[in-house]
Amino acid sequence: MNRVKLLLEYDGSNYHGFQIQKNADTVQARLEEAIFRLSGERVVMICAGRTDAGVHALGQVVAFNTEASIPGERWAFAVNTFLPADIQVLNSQYIHASFNPRFDALSKRYIYRILRSKEHKVFNRNHALCIHENLDVGLMQEACGFFIGRHNFRAFCASGSSAKTFERLVSKCCLIETGNRLDMEIEANGFLYNMVRIIVGTLLEAGRRKYPPSHIKEIIASRDRTLAGPTVPPQGLYLAEVKYNNTEK
Amino acid sequence: MNRVKLLLEYDGSNYHGFQIQKNADTVQARLEEAIFRLSGERVVMICAGRTDAGVHALGQVVAFNTEASIPGERWAFAVNTFLPADIQVLNSQYIHASFNPRFDALSKRYIYRILRSKEHKVFNRNHALCIHENLDVGLMQEACGFFIGRHNFRAFCASGSSAKTFERLVSKCCLIETGNRLDMEIEANGFLYNMVRIIVGTLLEAGRRKYPPSHIKEIIASRDRTLAGPTVPPQGLYLAEVKYNNTEK
Repeated sequence: MNRVKLLLEYDGSNYHGFQIQKNADTVQARLEEAIFRLSGERVVMICAGRTDAGVHALGQVVAFNTEASIPGERWAFAVNTFLPADIQVLNSQYIHASFNPRFDALSKRYIYRILRSKEHKVFNRNHALCIHENLDVGLMQEACGFFIGRHNFRAFCASGSSAKTFERLVSKCCLIETGNRLDMEIEANGFLYNMVRIIVGTLLEAGRRKYPPSHIKEIIASRDRTLAGPTVPPQGLYLAEVKYNNTEK
Repeated sequence: MNRVKLLLEYDGSNYHGFQIQKNADTVQARLEEAIFRLSGERVVMICAGRTDAGVHALGQVVAFNTEASIPGERWAFAVNTFLPADIQVLNSQYIHASFNPRFDALSKRYIYRILRSKEHKVFNRNHALCIHENLDVGLMQEACGFFIGRHNFRAFCASGSSAKTFERLVSKCCLIETGNRLDMEIEANGFLYNMVRIIVGTLLEAGRRKYPPSHIKEIIASRDRTLAGPTVPPQGLYLAEVKYNNTEK
């Protein structure tokens, strides 16, 4: 038996999220179906981060066991043969039997994309938050800095989450402006449910001057979800990268 | 009676081209339906360039007559209310009664987008030609130069076209490389059927060193469609801009 690790990208527009569920089309269902058509095996797949409906991935990682005698690096090409055009494996390899893409991850990096333009909306409607309004990007960039560090992020966790601990270490949080496009990049050792989307909603409030950037400190300290900004929609969100120990590449 | 001119963008992925036809969803059908829902009028619409199935527009222009008393610049917002998210009016105005978006156009500009990467294919599958191969971009850029000028483009016209004259004046033809992306921009006083897509197919053959760039001259002179390259697929093509006399804005 071998354990396969796949690196994949997908356009989440047409899926009800990653995780398999009854009566809904999901990325996991398509992947497991492709593997079944390839090897005849019904595998149990684990992913690094269960993306919600409409959320995309540039670097999702999954793992599963197989008895098939396919060279590790050939799995990518082989699985792609059976995948729809909006899900593609970028890379494949064999990995040690205990590898768990979720629990072994050192950190994950997400990108949230905002498009500030009346133009090109038709091409970005499923891939960015399109808002045509005045935003003070300098204030938003300043606000980003207050998220960096080890904090209790309970104020940035959707209610109904099953999380038991709320402390996370954010190692990167920055906003990159390219023309009409604003990309927020955030990296942490773990994320609470909807954490990225609530942080972006809060940055937008800072950009609209609802409060000064330093107020983020107080929102974090409050641990009160109602003080943070709204949850922005899923279509701007990308799971960009999952980092592991070098031994797991 | 007033004549309305609309500037619009659309993602052509989900449409069987611009022009209305039976039993197929088209951009024109959606526009005319939106106008009917807005004003109760069944209008006859003319466009600047009838894009094929899967082809996009950044700056399509259409015109129609109306009896509705809506201020010219408000038509954009009003029609958008009834349009799907993949078709949007960017701008609207009233224009002189004889305005014909097609015959009054001085020139049109198209962009053809190529993505040379194994990555991000899932996000570009409907919006670029995704090819992962070696191309000599310098040779392709050199080849572009041979299309500029007044030529008989019969070799670059799909068979079955109803065109009576094949002479067109190409005022711009260039290739812009940005990372993994290659955008060909071409502007001319008119285009033959599939002309842009055949030119791109020919540029790709030059990029693969099938023949030297200067061979383009001979292909043009031959007026023989079989000597030019293949027609590349529609999804990389964008009608970018239509230019009119200043009096028609």
